Order: sequence, then C-alpha cells, then structure tokens
Amino acid sequence: MDTVKTIKEVREYIKQWRRQGLSVALVPTMGYLHDGHKSLVERASKENHRVIVSIFVNPTQFGPNEDLDTYPRDLEHDKKVCESAGASLIFNPEPSEMYFDDRCTNVEVEGLTNGLCGAKRPGHFSGVCTVVSKLFNIVTPDRAYFGEKDAQQLAVIKRMVRDLSFDIEIVGCPIVREKDGLAKSSRNIYLSKEERQEALSLNRSLRRAKKRLKDGERDTNIIKKAIEEEINKETLSKIDYIEIINSEDLKPVEKIEKTVLIAIAVFIGKTRLIDNFTFEMEEK
Amino acid sequence: MDTVKTIKEVREYIKQWRRQGLSVALVPTMGYLHDGHKSLVERASKENHRVIVSIFVNPTQFGPNEDLDTYPRDLEHDKKVCESAGASLIFNPEPSEMYFDDRCTNVEVEGLTNGLCGAKRPGHFSGVCTVVSKLFNIVTPDRAYFGEKDAQQLAVIKRMVRDLSFDIEIVGCPIVREKDGLAKSSRNIYLSKEERQEALSLNRSLRRAKKRLKDGERDTNIIKKAIEEEINKETLSKIDYIEIINSEDLKPVEKIEKTVLIAIAVFIGKTRLIDNFTFEMEEK
Repeated sequence: MDTVKTIKEVREYIKQWRRQGLSVALVPTMGYLHDGHKSLVERASKENHRVIVSIFVNPTQFGPNEDLDTYPRDLEHDKKVCESAGASLIFNPEPSEMYFDDRCTNVEVEGLTNGLCGAKRPGHFSGVCTVVSKLFNIVTPDRAYFGEKDAQQLAVIKRMVRDLSFDIEIVGCPIVREKDGLAKSSRNIYLSKEERQEALSLNRSLRRAKKRLKDGERDTNIIKKAIEEEINKETLSKIDYIEIINSEDLKPVEKIEKTVLIAIAVFIGKTRLIDNFTFEMEEK
Repeated sequence: MDTVKTIKEVREYIKQWRRQGLSVALVPTMGYLHDGHKSLVERASKENHRVIVSIFVNPTQFGPNEDLDTYPRDLEHDKKVCESAGASLIFNPEPSEMYFDDRCTNVEVEGLTNGLCGAKRPGHFSGVCTVVSKLFNIVTPDRAYFGEKDAQQLAVIKRMVRDLSFDIEIVGCPIVREKDGLAKSSRNIYLSKEERQEALSLNRSLRRAKKRLKDGERDTNIIKKAIEEEINKETLSKIDYIEIINSEDLKPVEKIEKTVLIAIAVFIGKTRLIDNFTFEMEEK
C-alpha cells in the first residue's frame, strides 16, 4: 500500500487500474482513523477492486474559532489501519496541493445545509462539498463511502452527487460505537476522563428517544424534551442542537409520520460531539 | 451520428468509446449553431476520436427579463452542422432531464464573475458553471471546446476546472465573424435590417481601439473613450459595458502593461451583443 501526496500520482494509479478494468472506491477522511473509518475501508474493499483513502484535514471546512490547529493527526497509525482494512492507496496531500492561493470556486448545496451543523458552522458544508467534489474529480471513483454519524454531510453529499450528475454511488455506513455506546470520533481524544463519562449522555438520550418512539410517541416536541432532559442531567454539557427532521430533505417535522433523522450536537466542555439515529416508519 | 436525450444514453456511448481507448471531446452549446460553433466542432474532431455536442438552452443561466423564451432553436439545422463538422453524437436533453424540481446545488466562481457579463447578468455564471459541471460529469471528456467570443465565460470555466481539479483540457477557439466583421452569434437573428447595420459598430470600435493600442496608447480611459465614441455614433445602440481587464484574473487595469482583454457589450435595440479582442504584450 503506497502513500502519495500529489494529484498527479493518484491519477497515474487510477489510469493503471482503469486499464485493467478494476473498480475503484474512495473513502474521504481527515485522518486519525478510528474503527468507524476502518469499517468504511473494510466495506469499500469488499465491494471494489481498489480502495483509495484520502487523508486531508481540509482547512476550508473549519470555522475561524474551530479546532483546525489542534485537530489530531497520526499518519503512521493511519497507514496501519488502512493497510489492515484492505486499502490500496493513501492520498495525503498538503493544503497547497489542493488549493491555489487565488482559488475562487465553491460548490454550494442550499436548503439542506440551512439547519443542524450547517446553521451552527457557517461555511462548513461549502468547504466539505468543494473538497469532496475535488476528490471525486481526482479519484473518479465508482463508489464513495461516508459514515452515517455525519448524517447531514451524507445527505448533502448524496444531493450534490445527484444534482451535479456525478457518476458515483454514495454508500452510507452505520455508526460504530465504543462498548459503552459513545460514537467513535477523532474528536473523542479531546475529552478528559470526566468529560468522557459525561459524553455518554449523547447516546443515552438518543436511546431514550428511540424507546419513546417505539412506544408510539409521535410528537417531536415531547421527544426533543426527553433528549434535552437526559443531556441536561450532566454538568459539563451544553446542547448545540436537537433536531428531528425528514431524512431526505432535512426539513424539521412536527409530527412524526415518515422516516425521520434524530440528530444532536452537544458541547462537552470545549469539545463538540454529534450523534444521531434514523427512525424508520412505513410510508402511508 | 446519433442524437440522444438522456444522460444514460450518453454514458453508454462514453463507456463503449472508453473501452476502445478513444479520446472524447465535448462542445457545449445552446444550439442554433453558426460557423463559430462549427469551428469548435471541427477543431474538436481534428484533435479527438469522438466529439459530443451538447445542445441545451439552459434555463438557469438566463435572467428573469432575458430571452429564454425567444432564444432561437432549430435542431434539424443543428444536426446537419454537427454531422458535416465531424461530430459523433448530439446530447439534446429536456430541462427535466437535467434538473430535478428540488435541485439545490450550485457551482460558484467568485471574483472573476463580479464584472462584465457577471455584473450585468446576476446568476448567469452560476447557471453556466453548474450546467457545465454537470455536462463534464456526464460526458467526462478529455477536452472541452469554448469560443473566445464569450471571453469571460472561457476564463471562468478555466478557473473552475483548475479549482475543482477536473481532468479536462479547456480549449479556447477564435471568434468567427461575418464577412463585414460582425461576430457570429445565435442572437444576430434578432436584428432588423437596420440594427444589423448598426451592429457593425461593435467590431468597428474594437478595430479602432486595436489601432490606438498598436500606435502605442496605453491609457485605458483613452481607449475606452475611443470605443464609446464609435458606438455612440449609432442611434439604436446603447452601451452595456466597455471593459479593459487583465486577461487572467479579469480585474480592470488602468495602464496597459500586460496582456489585456478588451470586452464590450452593446444593446442594439433589444438585442444584447458582445465582442472582444485580446491585446498581447510581452511581459516585462
């Protein structure tokens, strides 16, 4: 498994693979890979002949007061994870390889990015969509794999691919959790021991919501209230958002009648974590 | 030469050609093809094994008070032009094939679109860049051919391709003119006999500017004044803009020291025409 830093080198690999008639998958990541990423690479290597993992802490998707500078990095560890999960190539560019100083092109997905992380992190999805478009144009994969933990990102990317006619299948993969239920995230490393304990409230509150839904509750305000109460039991936690939305257009719903996404973002101390689940209902 | 209306059919052709190792060119047009378009198709078929001409009057690049409804169409004529110029396939989609009702993705090129047609036609380049991105993703050409008459469009597309890492060579082709100097345009059909005569002022004014430049004039205000005077001799003409700009970043220049683009837009009656030329200077 090779690691390359330039677009040119990636394209040389791709051309070689294409000449052999091989299918190619892309797993875009910001590195510091955990078992969630690993599950994406494993699935991609089951479903494709070759898998490229991009490792790029994309500066344009971080806000001015966010954690770009402290975002954890460990390329040697990442290489081991990729290798063991069946990756064929790591693309690990410098920002200067990805962005010209006078770059002025952005890919914007409106509507779907108004709420949730889009509302709380202005410019975030513009950065995500633009860099993912670039990666798609560099790798030209048959399939690309994204985690369901970033549920809004997955919906936005799917819409972008549809709207811009990318000939790429977008595959969403289930959230991978620690044994105690905390969703795997590169940002979990930021948590102190006490915060790590408090962070369980995200998953716990969602499980409480899921139980209420299974018991037949359909009022989103009551469900939200249940989540809120559970998180507010903790002292270091601050709710960023609790949203119950249509899983396709990401618009808020009042009464749950179709499949919905229940998504939350919570600050545990300074660390912002997200979690979600989809509640499937048979369409009437 | 086949004509297809769906993305699926285009992709089937492309896959077949790629299996045979053939190179593919795209010539994006809005149809009603004239000798300018024909020159693009001819050059494309010289430089590539296969040429796809897209004929699509793209609604999203027209403003609310522009000529979308009256834009001239003649598919049978266009087919003959394409065939005789060496095209392999026409892609002639309906708007519903290109756009979902709930589409929400746009490709935006900032900066380069602030002046000239971008300033006068808000949303125009967003529509152009988005549809061209789609066409690029549908056709995945090796090369795409654009006329230099739409000089700003050509610069914007080049920038977009660079910024989004499309693996496509953008080829600009010279303006083709009527015998009397009027730049070929599908919109020339709108002109009355009298307006057709007046429209010669565009090219005439640019020739006057070119002469002043060759004589050593380097002050853009004096050059602009010369163009303005020439156009204002006519009674049905109204200047939309006269710009002298850096040919790469499209920023206005005051003193001409590097290669510049001299671009004008003039309303002849209700018809808006554009023309331009590039004045090349050796870089100091």
